[in-house]
Amino acid sequence: MNNKKRGLLIVISGPSGAGKGTICKELLKNNKDLSLSVSATTRCPRNGEIDGVNYYFLTREEFEKRIDENDFLENAEVYGNYYGTPKSNVEETLENGNDVILEIDIQGALKVKENTEEGVFIFILPPSMEELKQRIIKRGSETPESLMKRFKSAYKEINFVSKYNYAVVNDKVDVAVEKLEAIISAEKCRVDRLKHSILDSKEDLIHEQLYD
Amino acid sequence: MNNKKRGLLIVISGPSGAGKGTICKELLKNNKDLSLSVSATTRCPRNGEIDGVNYYFLTREEFEKRIDENDFLENAEVYGNYYGTPKSNVEETLENGNDVILEIDIQGALKVKENTEEGVFIFILPPSMEELKQRIIKRGSETPESLMKRFKSAYKEINFVSKYNYAVVNDKVDVAVEKLEAIISAEKCRVDRLKHSILDSKEDLIHEQLYD
Repeated sequence: MNNKKRGLLIVISGPSGAGKGTICKELLKNNKDLSLSVSATTRCPRNGEIDGVNYYFLTREEFEKRIDENDFLENAEVYGNYYGTPKSNVEETLENGNDVILEIDIQGALKVKENTEEGVFIFILPPSMEELKQRIIKRGSETPESLMKRFKSAYKEINFVSKYNYAVVNDKVDVAVEKLEAIISAEKCRVDRLKHSILDSKEDLIHEQLYD
Repeated sequence: MNNKKRGLLIVISGPSGAGKGTICKELLKNNKDLSLSVSATTRCPRNGEIDGVNYYFLTREEFEKRIDENDFLENAEVYGNYYGTPKSNVEETLENGNDVILEIDIQGALKVKENTEEGVFIFILPPSMEELKQRIIKRGSETPESLMKRFKSAYKEINFVSKYNYAVVNDKVDVAVEKLEAIISAEKCRVDRLKHSILDSKEDLIHEQLYD
């Protein structure tokens, strides 16, 4: 029997402009034991991007083979390129007892939820809809029409919060990161993660699970 | 509509010797916004005990009247005295948006669970069964037979952990207290606590709930 505790799959998601990227970066900086899941893609590496660090760069053929093998927790085609979360890599990390962070958009997160029974789903919210608008505007390089379209889509996307376990408002980055850390710490104390022990109700097993 | 967020009912429980008293004391010392629920009892006040601080001291008649009025989250008779958790006091504190800690034995906690749909149930575990034994022995003033009886009962009680939401091993007090703080912080981010907003799926309501 593998006595090592399985790692947590932590899915961090939210509308664009909510700031999930910044939060994840800080979270990973402060918690060296967390690892970020590396996505796979068929797009070409940009300057300085390293295979296996920024992305796993795959050919279309390789990517489609892995789709057929059901080796993605989620995948999507965007502007003619595939992107996806490799299941086997995530599984290996969890199996080794390490926690994995997936930083992912809402569509992706909902697919992950369909494809796995585990996962702690955290929705990052902007401090207010007005602030979200300002953040999208500040990113610039878009026409007023496309800005309005992105804002409306973010506004709609916020309703998907109901599919998540937790919601964290990204008002101040350090406060939001503390909340994520609290969620991760609390999830490790959840009794329903000690499932075997409890279902079996064998005392020795309980003790083994609780005190390993 | 009352926009104030309701406080959390936090039930901290565990076998005797697990150290829930010490942990609660530290938790309350570090978090002045938490309040400890004051129990009611029919036993006589001991030296220095203050009505409304250590206990609400009630006559048997008063206590039984409140049982009839269904004003206890749990109550029990021990060695001829009643003890109980007054529902109205807890309710008032929660209604005002403040969190309440119930430090309570396992039988009491299970009754609270039957009598309320809310509540975060946390089970405090000793670091090991051997350590639990040592702690019970150190308290002294008991015969070997009664020690063994208490130990066996604690050993059995540990199986009730499956009825709780969280389990925290009390190995080091400060680490255990940090875990309790993380659990409280995480529970405040749980989406299922924003129930109205999500069930209604009215966007304005969602935003009102999320951003009040």
